[in-house]
Amino acid sequence: MTLLRPRGRWLALLTLVLLGVSTNADAKTAEELTVAIDTIWVLITASLVFFMNLGFGLVESGFCRAKNTVNILSKNFVVFAISCLAFYLFGWGLMFGNGSGWLGTEGLLMLGGTDNSPATGDAYSGAYTAIAWTGIPLLAKFFFQLVFAGTAATIVSGAVAERIKYVSFIIFSFLLVAFVYPVTGHWIWGGGWLAGAGFWDFAGSTVVHSVGGWAALTGTLILGPRLGKYSPNGTVNPILPHSMTSGFIGCLVLWLGWFGFNPGSTMTADPAAISHVFMTTNSAAFMGLLSATTLNWLWDGKPDLGMSVNGCLAGLVAITAPCAFVTVNASLIIGLLAGLIVVGAVKLLDALKIDDPVGAIPVHLFNGTFGTLCVGLFAVDKITGAATGNGLFNGGGMTLLIAQLEGIAAVGVYTLVLSAIFWFAIKAVVGLRVSKEEEEEGLDFGEHGQSAYSGFNTLQV
Amino acid sequence: MTLLRPRGRWLALLTLVLLGVSTNADAKTAEELTVAIDTIWVLITASLVFFMNLGFGLVESGFCRAKNTVNILSKNFVVFAISCLAFYLFGWGLMFGNGSGWLGTEGLLMLGGTDNSPATGDAYSGAYTAIAWTGIPLLAKFFFQLVFAGTAATIVSGAVAERIKYVSFIIFSFLLVAFVYPVTGHWIWGGGWLAGAGFWDFAGSTVVHSVGGWAALTGTLILGPRLGKYSPNGTVNPILPHSMTSGFIGCLVLWLGWFGFNPGSTMTADPAAISHVFMTTNSAAFMGLLSATTLNWLWDGKPDLGMSVNGCLAGLVAITAPCAFVTVNASLIIGLLAGLIVVGAVKLLDALKIDDPVGAIPVHLFNGTFGTLCVGLFAVDKITGAATGNGLFNGGGMTLLIAQLEGIAAVGVYTLVLSAIFWFAIKAVVGLRVSKEEEEEGLDFGEHGQSAYSGFNTLQV
Amino acid sequence: MTLLRPRGRWLALLTLVLLGVSTNADAKTAEELTVAIDTIWVLITASLVFFMNLGFGLVESGFCRAKNTVNILSKNFVVFAISCLAFYLFGWGLMFGNGSGWLGTEGLLMLGGTDNSPATGDAYSGAYTAIAWTGIPLLAKFFFQLVFAGTAATIVSGAVAERIKYVSFIIFSFLLVAFVYPVTGHWIWGGGWLAGAGFWDFAGSTVVHSVGGWAALTGTLILGPRLGKYSPNGTVNPILPHSMTSGFIGCLVLWLGWFGFNPGSTMTADPAAISHVFMTTNSAAFMGLLSATTLNWLWDGKPDLGMSVNGCLAGLVAITAPCAFVTVNASLIIGLLAGLIVVGAVKLLDALKIDDPVGAIPVHLFNGTFGTLCVGLFAVDKITGAATGNGLFNGGGMTLLIAQLEGIAAVGVYTLVLSAIFWFAIKAVVGLRVSKEEEEEGLDFGEHGQSAYSGFNTLQV
Repeated sequence: MTLLRPRGRWLALLTLVLLGVSTNADAKTAEELTVAIDTIWVLITASLVFFMNLGFGLVESGFCRAKNTVNILSKNFVVFAISCLAFYLFGWGLMFGNGSGWLGTEGLLMLGGTDNSPATGDAYSGAYTAIAWTGIPLLAKFFFQLVFAGTAATIVSGAVAERIKYVSFIIFSFLLVAFVYPVTGHWIWGGGWLAGAGFWDFAGSTVVHSVGGWAALTGTLILGPRLGKYSPNGTVNPILPHSMTSGFIGCLVLWLGWFGFNPGSTMTADPAAISHVFMTTNSAAFMGLLSATTLNWLWDGKPDLGMSVNGCLAGLVAITAPCAFVTVNASLIIGLLAGLIVVGAVKLLDALKIDDPVGAIPVHLFNGTFGTLCVGLFAVDKITGAATGNGLFNGGGMTLLIAQLEGIAAVGVYTLVLSAIFWFAIKAVVGLRVSKEEEEEGLDFGEHGQSAYSGFNTLQV
Repeated sequence: MTLLRPRGRWLALLTLVLLGVSTNADAKTAEELTVAIDTIWVLITASLVFFMNLGFGLVESGFCRAKNTVNILSKNFVVFAISCLAFYLFGWGLMFGNGSGWLGTEGLLMLGGTDNSPATGDAYSGAYTAIAWTGIPLLAKFFFQLVFAGTAATIVSGAVAERIKYVSFIIFSFLLVAFVYPVTGHWIWGGGWLAGAGFWDFAGSTVVHSVGGWAALTGTLILGPRLGKYSPNGTVNPILPHSMTSGFIGCLVLWLGWFGFNPGSTMTADPAAISHVFMTTNSAAFMGLLSATTLNWLWDGKPDLGMSVNGCLAGLVAITAPCAFVTVNASLIIGLLAGLIVVGAVKLLDALKIDDPVGAIPVHLFNGTFGTLCVGLFAVDKITGAATGNGLFNGGGMTLLIAQLEGIAAVGVYTLVLSAIFWFAIKAVVGLRVSKEEEEEGLDFGEHGQSAYSGFNTLQV
Repeated sequence: MTLLRPRGRWLALLTLVLLGVSTNADAKTAEELTVAIDTIWVLITASLVFFMNLGFGLVESGFCRAKNTVNILSKNFVVFAISCLAFYLFGWGLMFGNGSGWLGTEGLLMLGGTDNSPATGDAYSGAYTAIAWTGIPLLAKFFFQLVFAGTAATIVSGAVAERIKYVSFIIFSFLLVAFVYPVTGHWIWGGGWLAGAGFWDFAGSTVVHSVGGWAALTGTLILGPRLGKYSPNGTVNPILPHSMTSGFIGCLVLWLGWFGFNPGSTMTADPAAISHVFMTTNSAAFMGLLSATTLNWLWDGKPDLGMSVNGCLAGLVAITAPCAFVTVNASLIIGLLAGLIVVGAVKLLDALKIDDPVGAIPVHLFNGTFGTLCVGLFAVDKITGAATGNGLFNGGGMTLLIAQLEGIAAVGVYTLVLSAIFWFAIKAVVGLRVSKEEEEEGLDFGEHGQSAYSGFNTLQV
């Protein structure tokens, strides 16, 4: 590293000699090479997960109206920044710090704990033992977990779109990533009580997606539907997407991002495991796409691109928990079912007059829950190494399924209660919803004083 | 992997000790490290190739009209899912299964053959010997080949855009990836007769692009031109692109994707080879961009962005076969010529009244063929290791060039015939083309019941 | 590599045996494995940097008017191609060729020098000694540096948008990348006099961003403001962005690209260093986003998405020089200040009636300079290995800060003078600015004869 920008040719050569970094120098050990491979694997997959912020922003804005585009993009942009701050200040320590089965209590603030990464296992001595199974530098571990934390908050954004105040959303996001996500995360990935109870969630169907989904559900219920969505006489009035191009770009970027999300969750470049996870992830995605498209085609007479997008995302969310624990053929079935579930759930929410503009709840809550259950149904013990035990359909009986149900319930209750408290507190202090006038005119002008598409002749809808 | 989500700190430590995975554990061997490096290389480059689905969808939709955008995006979305299904069910086994020189006959369905990857060479014993030169897990090999198979079908989409029935395109795509692409693929990459005849195609100018191009040509000819494109009096009426922004995004995503497509085709992280292929790929792309822009500028008086895009893609398609077999300077010449060819071919198709809305045939068929020939012209024996022999311009005589011509002809005839049979069969059973009314109104409403840009005031063109 | 496309199963097996590439073959050495890991790291991060071309194109076009979109996208597209040509022909040799402290004089044209990469240090004997500290193939070194060179020219594009002639911009870009960028680059990264003087710039706040920024400033000054931007009575008339969706996509792509730009500049997969650089890069980005958004909110009453985008980019530019030399907490402060600086600089340029349509000068010049200074303020000696000495705030006194100031001044003067000469020469020979009529009608029609959004009802603004 001293050599990165040599101050001159001769100086560089001199430094090389002094440091012994030359072709005659001692070669790297197998352990050092392993750390290097694992680190680049984790950082590259983390970059793909980071890129999902673009995907979420585009699916959400594309599926909403042109007059709210700046607001939606701004929310999706700032929410990652706020998540970074919240996770650095509080989240990481609560989630991965040594502590009780309920939360981390060591090394709480700003990565402040002791640490001797990349040492693993017995050789590790530091504040973040629960994540010491991967032999990479602490900052690589943190960055990977950081981009995951950002995802949970982003999910909320879609469900509360087109009516929430910008500032209120920012405050909620901070609280979610600082105090909600990391606590249930500690239970599962931080060596907490749910992990001890035999609950398995490989890459976060529950840890990330259901948590985002529960918070989205409380937000939607407390905010109420958008103006004009449900007529007093019971009709559901479709509010049309302003750019299916944005929605399409967003979905493809998310699909790509999931090749970081799921295989990267190995946090170690185990060839068999990452190849397996790539396949199960992709299989569930394409089967969800196909089954949702088909069911929607049969149900409504024509295949709607938005439903294809949500079917694909549903498959991806559902396979997130079981991707490393099930066979490729099981992933095809999981994806197929996920696609059917998302179509049904969209219809159900409309029947219940719960207004979720982009389908965040059908995708992330319904399928996050479904995917978590699938571990209990389809798991094959040690298929990529993890000793999950077998699921119900592989002769493992109800043990794993019951643990999964326990985790789903516990995470659901905690997130529902805490989210509701936060939403109501914000409502009391700064308010949650923009004025009727602003909602009609569009949040772009009201919240940001600008328009997304100046020069285009857009209709007020 | 057992350690991925430890169920508690102490449990995790216990597991670590039991498995011997600790800092005192046996270090990885050089073979294991090589497998890990090669696997992450292949999976990451495969992810980039997957992302090309976004690029194709945006170039195609951007170059067409707003009223057909949902349909085009839907086609590009579903085609990858259908390709995944077709390649998993039938394609992979036909292409890489052990068998005759004509097709694979072992391990045909659903990756069902025996396999002991990542063993290579003599040590490999399984159903997929032709791809046992790369030492990575079977699922990684499959996934890389899967994203390639998806590309061939996507190419067709552009040429038949704005008039084909959604369901008919889906059926054709399935048949192409299940039964056309893998057979000629077997001849070349599956250890078949063309490989034996000395035909070389490094990353698929013929295997992928020409095959897509031939299928696109038959489709276009059978469908006929779009309404209003060619007047009875012989005039060519330009049909204008609705979003050059989409076209630009698409092209840049494709260029990025090609850094997976070509260098990833090494399927092993050989430093010299992948660096070489990065350079030749990029050189042909930028030279194609420059030469097409220049020729178009001189010919039509002003440089059209669409022609720059197609020049760049032409260079990329042309360098795909020879990227590992030619010098960097040769890649500059190949790219330069590819850019000229694409401009000429676009003019030629219009003169012949063959309506290819996005230039898929000039890009993929003309330049896929040209690039395959370039191996015979510019090859330098063993420049990155492969014993191709020298091309005509390097003193190798006509041997290699003749083998290349043989391959081009054989693949062309097979694909033309089978594609035509499939297109006519689909036409007979479900029909190929939407009604005149639907074509005028736009396929978005007719096929999908929705609009891509609700709220925007778009003109019916 | 001979095995890449075996000509048949038995032939393949034979070849395997002949080459000794089998599971019984000699395993790779640690040195070979290190080269492989470093090479894939550099090529993948280079791909991310390449992708920044998409980001720049979208931020610039999104922030400008619909009627100039084709022109802006074309400029951003062709500029990379031109940069490739210029850097291959002249730039690389001037920058990294052995020579004096002022410029390279060996191996000048078309990578023509001798080279025995991946040998490093003493073992290296070739024309490009200054970059022989990284042990990867020459073509990988070149490709990584090539995508950097492309960035500098792209920066200029934004500042001169909506009024410059296409051909004039192309010529300037060629001259910049062939003769300006590589010379100052040689001073700093090519073992030249500034490196010898103790000036440090890890990934190019000065080498890339300030150079682009100075060239942009001269261009803007010589071109003058867009028609109607500043009224004779002193009012500043905002010219509104036509697509905040493009701007948002562009920014997220750039942020992703920076995970190649900064960590990739290690050019070796040092786990601790690349993890550190990921964190500092991300921290500065999100803090810049937050501080710019907040200041803009307080100053103007509402948070403008464009300012959030520029705040994020400002943080990224500022951390580019110091990312490997400062702590994570320092990177938070640097990002925070960068966000404030960019808001102030945007206001300042408008006060000075310098018309920079996209904020390229506030982002790249102001923050490139600021970031370079931050090395002198916040550096921690050897924090990732480099012996920078400590900065002022870490007890290192003024030494480093003075060297940084010296470099900023030298690079600024050289780039200002040479850019001005080139701009004036081009003005004299082919002219710089389009006609008033063309500017009013839009450059898309005037320069390219097409419209970006045919079929949309866009207003002439």
